[in-house]
Amino acid sequence: MKFTAFQIAELIGATVEGNPDAEIRTFCRIEEGIPGALSFLANPKYTQYIYQTEASAVIVSEDFVPEEKLTTTLIRTKNPYAAIAQLMAIYEEMVKPKKIGISEKAYIAPTAQIGKDVYIAEFVSVGEGAVIGDYAQLYPHTVIGDRGVVGEKSTLYAGVKVYRDCKIGKECIIHAGAVIGADGFGFAPQDGHYLKVPQIGNVIIEDNVEIGANTCIDRATIGSTIIHSHVKLDNLIQVAHNVELGESTACAAQVGISGSTKIGKKGIIAGQVGIAGHLHIGDNVIIGAQSGVMTNIEDKQIVLGSPAIPVSEEKKLIIYRKKLPDLYKQVRELWKKYQQDE
Amino acid sequence: MKFTAFQIAELIGATVEGNPDAEIRTFCRIEEGIPGALSFLANPKYTQYIYQTEASAVIVSEDFVPEEKLTTTLIRTKNPYAAIAQLMAIYEEMVKPKKIGISEKAYIAPTAQIGKDVYIAEFVSVGEGAVIGDYAQLYPHTVIGDRGVVGEKSTLYAGVKVYRDCKIGKECIIHAGAVIGADGFGFAPQDGHYLKVPQIGNVIIEDNVEIGANTCIDRATIGSTIIHSHVKLDNLIQVAHNVELGESTACAAQVGISGSTKIGKKGIIAGQVGIAGHLHIGDNVIIGAQSGVMTNIEDKQIVLGSPAIPVSEEKKLIIYRKKLPDLYKQVRELWKKYQQDE
Amino acid sequence: MKFTAFQIAELIGATVEGNPDAEIRTFCRIEEGIPGALSFLANPKYTQYIYQTEASAVIVSEDFVPEEKLTTTLIRTKNPYAAIAQLMAIYEEMVKPKKIGISEKAYIAPTAQIGKDVYIAEFVSVGEGAVIGDYAQLYPHTVIGDRGVVGEKSTLYAGVKVYRDCKIGKECIIHAGAVIGADGFGFAPQDGHYLKVPQIGNVIIEDNVEIGANTCIDRATIGSTIIHSHVKLDNLIQVAHNVELGESTACAAQVGISGSTKIGKKGIIAGQVGIAGHLHIGDNVIIGAQSGVMTNIEDKQIVLGSPAIPVSEEKKLIIYRKKLPDLYKQVRELWKKYQQDE
Repeated sequence: MKFTAFQIAELIGATVEGNPDAEIRTFCRIEEGIPGALSFLANPKYTQYIYQTEASAVIVSEDFVPEEKLTTTLIRTKNPYAAIAQLMAIYEEMVKPKKIGISEKAYIAPTAQIGKDVYIAEFVSVGEGAVIGDYAQLYPHTVIGDRGVVGEKSTLYAGVKVYRDCKIGKECIIHAGAVIGADGFGFAPQDGHYLKVPQIGNVIIEDNVEIGANTCIDRATIGSTIIHSHVKLDNLIQVAHNVELGESTACAAQVGISGSTKIGKKGIIAGQVGIAGHLHIGDNVIIGAQSGVMTNIEDKQIVLGSPAIPVSEEKKLIIYRKKLPDLYKQVRELWKKYQQDE
Repeated sequence: MKFTAFQIAELIGATVEGNPDAEIRTFCRIEEGIPGALSFLANPKYTQYIYQTEASAVIVSEDFVPEEKLTTTLIRTKNPYAAIAQLMAIYEEMVKPKKIGISEKAYIAPTAQIGKDVYIAEFVSVGEGAVIGDYAQLYPHTVIGDRGVVGEKSTLYAGVKVYRDCKIGKECIIHAGAVIGADGFGFAPQDGHYLKVPQIGNVIIEDNVEIGANTCIDRATIGSTIIHSHVKLDNLIQVAHNVELGESTACAAQVGISGSTKIGKKGIIAGQVGIAGHLHIGDNVIIGAQSGVMTNIEDKQIVLGSPAIPVSEEKKLIIYRKKLPDLYKQVRELWKKYQQDE
Repeated sequence: MKFTAFQIAELIGATVEGNPDAEIRTFCRIEEGIPGALSFLANPKYTQYIYQTEASAVIVSEDFVPEEKLTTTLIRTKNPYAAIAQLMAIYEEMVKPKKIGISEKAYIAPTAQIGKDVYIAEFVSVGEGAVIGDYAQLYPHTVIGDRGVVGEKSTLYAGVKVYRDCKIGKECIIHAGAVIGADGFGFAPQDGHYLKVPQIGNVIIEDNVEIGANTCIDRATIGSTIIHSHVKLDNLIQVAHNVELGESTACAAQVGISGSTKIGKKGIIAGQVGIAGHLHIGDNVIIGAQSGVMTNIEDKQIVLGSPAIPVSEEKKLIIYRKKLPDLYKQVRELWKKYQQDE
């Protein structure tokens, strides 16, 4: 790859400020600053690095106002993070061609239907009645259970396991080791032991969903656990039976969502959050890291803490808690006075 | 499947209230309410749905007293959740026949012993001296290490890994990606680095245990990590070396139990709980979600919080913490008065 | 195996106190106390057991002073835990010979380079241009992506997945189900949805690293996620893109480290800790269990809590919080008095 800053600006509809002929051969992080590389500035925490970076060009926001002299060339655009994403996607297609072909070392059940131009790697197992869409990519060791469905252009990385009757939509990406459709955790206490409640439902994953490595999404007891389109799940997340995740909601790593909870659209759930079962979480809700959600949450709320409460309230309580030593001291003094007065 | 409400009541020793000839062809959740479907009411949170449900029959508790007129047929039994579990198990056996046969694409070491009527799928690997019991079900990609044992009628789903010398009892279910017998986390600090402490013990899982997807149970340093019979573990749980989990204890997802901790019988450990090492937790203990247990716990205690304390105490502290702004205000006023008085 | 206490002391440069001819055939935990077994005392919590143990010999610290009469033989050394580690390693080599040979049921891409005396088990998949070092051990179902590198004498247990272009150093141990190099969680909001930010970097794992079962280490967006030498990671840990973990840092199970955070050398991070993104954690830092780290941490700090603060401060706050009911009572009384005075 070899572009000029001007060519790159053209590609993403941006404007150049500095040397339009600056040569770009690769990408770098702004704090690395490699000559010949294109970088970007999206997180204000990293602004300091732009003044000494050796990167040949940096994609910045249209309204970025430098506070010092710059030596690098600026490429100004509305959304720098989206712009670099676009350019990296172009780069990735150039250096990492899509895999194609069906390995002789794969196992495909006789009744499975396989689309065109798929990649089915060695040691993939596709069950009876399963359907693999056109251009789907099944990396080594993926397991698709009986009647499982993988939509067009979806990629399942090494060792993804899809249990029987579960459905993956189009253009999804599922990372290594994720488990889709294991039994929900349902047991009925009986005579001092637990009687297993069979989990006869399934999992439905809609289009454009990304699921992280070793994340688990359990099948429904009855009906479906549903992951709506454009949901993004990080690694090691637990989604229990009969959960529903609304469109474009994102969950960071190690989140746990208990059974039958419904979460709205465009939510942001930070790392290690736990959400109790049978709750309704509205649209556009933000849940801070490590929170424990025990109650329903209305649309557009931002909550934090365990148990989670509105973030402004929780932040005050964190400060008040830190001042407890002073409070105790004051009360001790007041008490002493009070006792003297008696 | 096609039954009448009466036939279903007969199967589970229940009584019908309403139309005994109501036709049942499937199951539904009560809030879905599908005509021709059987539903159940076990969680009082869902009682509201019974009055308008279109389900043809609903299994309810013997002492359920409707507060409005019902259109659906009631099937009354002592334990509705256990009853629906029983019926779903019958249904599941009808629609999902047990798999049988040994795939030519499996690898079975010459010295392994394989029981009768087993299912050993493609790409299963069974090590030297391993023993697979009668009717065991090994789904694709299960790996049984050398001298590993899988008991009769146990099911291991796709990609379960059992390390060498670990033993799984009878009628166990282990979900995809679970790892049984990886090395415990043992290192001796030496000369500024860590020296690995070999983990020469194993894992013993007794009968009727269920283990969730991607859950990890480490082998003992010396001796055995023991999961007693009827234990139920959800997904993504960490059980460290030399832990012992008592009979019929249940752990929700993402729980972590540190090394050498012993947990009694019939415990309930909610999601994302962490338990420190070398502790004794009694029988019938309940630990609330996200708790951090740092001390031993007596039988029958219910604890909550991090660090975990008796639940009634923790619930009070949560309320007191929320009232801190008022408390500070009061103390500020008292202080002002106090200073004026000086 | 059959040794005398004297022979064992010789092996590890220790001194015998008691019967030098005491016969040792196996190991046991001190609370088990098996005749003919060697035990050790490293954790003071277990000191009580030494007085009644039936173990034939016990490795203890040079400065251990018994408070009662002992029947067992003592083997005194500076670092008992390191000594037992050394002996168990000798034992393990005797009972568990290294595996060797390449299975015909493995898949090795034509352009992969395979070192000498490796073990490549059945159903292993090695991608194009991958390099497997001498004496490496790839257990069943390991997947090495294109151009992946596994250093000399490293062991990858069943089902480890290494994505393309990721590099594992020498003498590493990676446990079953670990995923090295899945895409970092990077999305740019655009038009109400998320645009994927391609993750074009890789993961570099240096020498002598151990990684637990089902742990996930994401590839960098640009550049490398780096795990420096002698790092020890337990099970089910999340290491996000562009994280850097310093030499000899140890993380207990279920820790989550967010993107671009740099952690220094010789840190100890306890179980279920969460660390926010873009932070700098110094050298020799200790982070208590379940902490939530939201800010940079200087060298040698010990922190606890969520949000994490210096441990001494947090411990005080925990105590103050527990005393809140008393504080409220006092303030109520003061307030009553105050109102009477008005």
